[in-house]
Amino acid sequence: MSRYLIGIDIGGTKLATVVATIDGVILHKIRQPTEAKKGSDYVVSKLIQMVNETREFIQVSCSQIEAIGISCGGPLDPQTGIVYSPPNLPNWDAVPLKQIITQEFNIPVVIENDANASAYAEWQFGGGRGFKNVVFITMSTGIGAGIVSDGRILQGTNGCAGEVGHQILIPDGPLCGCGNRGCLESICSGPSIARRAKEAVKKQTNTKILDLADGKISAIKSEHVVLAAQKDDPLAIDLIQQTAFYMGWGIANLVNIVNPEVVLIGTIAIAAGELLLEPIRQTVQKMAMRRPAEAVQIRPAELGNRIGDLAAISLVRSPMNN
Amino acid sequence: MSRYLIGIDIGGTKLATVVATIDGVILHKIRQPTEAKKGSDYVVSKLIQMVNETREFIQVSCSQIEAIGISCGGPLDPQTGIVYSPPNLPNWDAVPLKQIITQEFNIPVVIENDANASAYAEWQFGGGRGFKNVVFITMSTGIGAGIVSDGRILQGTNGCAGEVGHQILIPDGPLCGCGNRGCLESICSGPSIARRAKEAVKKQTNTKILDLADGKISAIKSEHVVLAAQKDDPLAIDLIQQTAFYMGWGIANLVNIVNPEVVLIGTIAIAAGELLLEPIRQTVQKMAMRRPAEAVQIRPAELGNRIGDLAAISLVRSPMNN
Repeated sequence: MSRYLIGIDIGGTKLATVVATIDGVILHKIRQPTEAKKGSDYVVSKLIQMVNETREFIQVSCSQIEAIGISCGGPLDPQTGIVYSPPNLPNWDAVPLKQIITQEFNIPVVIENDANASAYAEWQFGGGRGFKNVVFITMSTGIGAGIVSDGRILQGTNGCAGEVGHQILIPDGPLCGCGNRGCLESICSGPSIARRAKEAVKKQTNTKILDLADGKISAIKSEHVVLAAQKDDPLAIDLIQQTAFYMGWGIANLVNIVNPEVVLIGTIAIAAGELLLEPIRQTVQKMAMRRPAEAVQIRPAELGNRIGDLAAISLVRSPMNN
Repeated sequence: MSRYLIGIDIGGTKLATVVATIDGVILHKIRQPTEAKKGSDYVVSKLIQMVNETREFIQVSCSQIEAIGISCGGPLDPQTGIVYSPPNLPNWDAVPLKQIITQEFNIPVVIENDANASAYAEWQFGGGRGFKNVVFITMSTGIGAGIVSDGRILQGTNGCAGEVGHQILIPDGPLCGCGNRGCLESICSGPSIARRAKEAVKKQTNTKILDLADGKISAIKSEHVVLAAQKDDPLAIDLIQQTAFYMGWGIANLVNIVNPEVVLIGTIAIAAGELLLEPIRQTVQKMAMRRPAEAVQIRPAELGNRIGDLAAISLVRSPMNN
């Protein structure tokens, strides 16, 4: 009788459930809007229904499921399986998700915050394959990271390790969503790049950034900055280079502390490519110590939009072949 | 037949060898000056002789030695056992120390840089007992750290993890020994505190710092600043509070990335006590994210000058009882 894995990916806007082989090959997937505002009870019962639909579609019984992996926005405690109040899941407060799902299916459940699970997926399936020490950095609405150290997720004391985006670079810098000022995220996240672009465009309107935003400063997004830089717009290139400096500074500090072999950067770094990555590398080589700087590669993440499904599955797949 | 452990502590000014029980109780110790300038061959052959003297003194044969632990100034690679060019061991260049000692005694050898080994010792014998995630920060001539994560030393890719002191806080700040500017070490190490004190005393000579340095600005050391602050000298208190702010900032970044349960700080923090520790704690609570900040305690390290011997022994003692 074949054995299978279930993956559950809980995001602020959509939910996904997948069934995979024990090697991690995804066989079927269902997606639904999260409707987070309807509260955790509603979302959790929808998830349970989705899990059953997904496995029934390919005629897999509960007894054939080896384990369920859950990737969810943090903060959450991977030991207790309690999800605290993720910014993208309003009204969730200390939801004992692991316990609920374990009781429902009577199958082992592993839960991790999405940044850690994504790092684990990149290590098993993506740009981290073949390395022992991998950091995956999300660079989109926020800046988060997961750290894989010697093939294990570095969880820390209460599941909070990897908050690379909230290291403070400029104590009197821009206000961050976390309440502090001058965090890496407050300078280099997508919305932060857009904010810096808006300020710059107010002073210098002759830029392709503004054209791409249909002439409306308020409509400028980080994507416009990346596209304009790729079209050689000088202001956009300046903004990307500033971004690379702060990302490189933050990554250099991380490299000194954790000494990874590879740092994989997602979303914006994938879109911007070498335009952003090369100056990040140069800054890391300059600002990190020589030996850890020599040991590290800085690359775009590889899994793209497959990462959510694989993140959940990677938690329960045996990574013995890595 | 009883079994024993050997510990070797290699510092820039002195060498020590100890014999301990397999539980880590130190039975005998020998100390010698390093005489590092005479080169690695000289130092290594002296070490071998010291190991033999130490064990012969308490009549322990080589066959009774279970393992040899070596704590040595980094950079070094704990896997290959090669010691690169430690700043405190001039003329050492890629010395295959683990291989030499293994071949000499035909006993398993474990080698670690002193910061990592000290963290491991604090976890096993000192202020880190009972915790799973421990950071030990040296705060003396330099600022280094060792990270114990889930009971294992976080080594990183080439043994360089834990360089907390070389995270950059102020990119145009003071020049650091590592060649960069504005590293935590360039602001908060003993010599850096002394440098800041000298600059401040030039502008304001009415201070107990100057009295303690016999009236000579050039003779000011960090110890004078600590002592003057303990005698309520306002300038010294300012300098300690500045130091606490930067230490707290650097530790907050570390806490966000590694999420430890306890951060133990040595030497200067032990001498200054709560005068330094309390404002460090306040800064960490302010600058780190709420959940990792709530999880962490900031305390003085506990092993004091026993740390060198226990560092080497902790590497080979089985920490199963921790």
